Amino acid sequence: MSVSDGLTTLSVSEPGPPERGDAARNRALLLDAARRLVSEHGAEAVTTDDIAAAAGVGKGTLFRRFGSRAGLMIVLLDEDEKALQQAFLFGPPPLGPGAAPADRLRAYGRERLAFVDTHHALLSDVGRDPQMRYNAPMMLHHSHVRMLLDQAHTSGDLDAQTTALLALLDADYVRHETTERGRTLGDLGDAWDTLVGKLCGT
Amino acid sequence: MSVSDGLTTLSVSEPGPPERGDAARNRALLLDAARRLVSEHGAEAVTTDDIAAAAGVGKGTLFRRFGSRAGLMIVLLDEDEKALQQAFLFGPPPLGPGAAPADRLRAYGRERLAFVDTHHALLSDVGRDPQMRYNAPMMLHHSHVRMLLDQAHTSGDLDAQTTALLALLDADYVRHETTERGRTLGDLGDAWDTLVGKLCGT
Repeated sequence: MSVSDGLTTLSVSEPGPPERGDAARNRALLLDAARRLVSEHGAEAVTTDDIAAAAGVGKGTLFRRFGSRAGLMIVLLDEDEKALQQAFLFGPPPLGPGAAPADRLRAYGRERLAFVDTHHALLSDVGRDPQMRYNAPMMLHHSHVRMLLDQAHTSGDLDAQTTALLALLDADYVRHETTERGRTLGDLGDAWDTLVGKLCGT
Repeated sequence: MSVSDGLTTLSVSEPGPPERGDAARNRALLLDAARRLVSEHGAEAVTTDDIAAAAGVGKGTLFRRFGSRAGLMIVLLDEDEKALQQAFLFGPPPLGPGAAPADRLRAYGRERLAFVDTHHALLSDVGRDPQMRYNAPMMLHHSHVRMLLDQAHTSGDLDAQTTALLALLDADYVRHETTERGRTLGDLGDAWDTLVGKLCGT
């Protein structure tokens, strides 16, 4: 994926030649349907029957394109992860460049909270594997938050403060707070803002 | 365990009548030997042969008293966990009552860093289970840190700031920083102090 592509031409890197015609169209229909259903009902409640029906294609097409339900969910997570990365790296402010670093951090937290809430189930599996906690996508989030703390002239150990901040965006933590403690994503966003302010001194 | 027992009479709650004589003595010898070896070499490197030899008892005695290597390690973790709890709840300042809340938090972080470094392997298993992340011992640590933040008149969402702080004492995080990034427990303690200061405004 070229970073100069912009938000409109994001594609997931996969082996083999580019998909064309019906195949590419069905793939996009299935991913859009899955994204909509997961956002409305949570990943756990969405079946391959639901997705195929909402996409208006046969279930066989889903399995031909993605192999399994898990395969589709991983591609969905990957596409959404890349879209979020594009948005905070190259998109409009306050999430993207152009806003004050502390404001970019605040916007990042809100976006990421919504993301981990939607993709909780898959992110939870990833987070539970200690090898995966320090994998490439996670490192990119760490680097981004650390860079913004640095640009905000934050004092002290930036790596540790990045780790402390990112704990508030952990998928299991967010799920625990929303389901067991009745907190909203807005509450968690406010808590994020407070911590950002204290670390950056703004 | 009664909290009024004080530090000298800590005992792990186990079913059955109290141990007496040789049995209790061997149990204590084995735990002391295991604690010393784990502290010196890391839990991964310590075998039941090492522990029995260092305790001066037969390996059969180890298995009679603890069932397995894992059984001994769980009892060791439990005893040390209770000793640390006693120390921060009822021990001398600055860890125990009597010091300023921010100073107690700083002392708590240093003690806990040493603890999770010693007991990494078992704590890592506990932390990986999302159910166990919110279990009783973990809740006690959360409550303690939250109480000290409150006593220090910390503004904002105290639960979230407690979660952010405790991320710096996570067993996998501490292990990653010390083994993969060459950081010392002293470095991590300094980072803890900085974060405490920013949250408490001290």
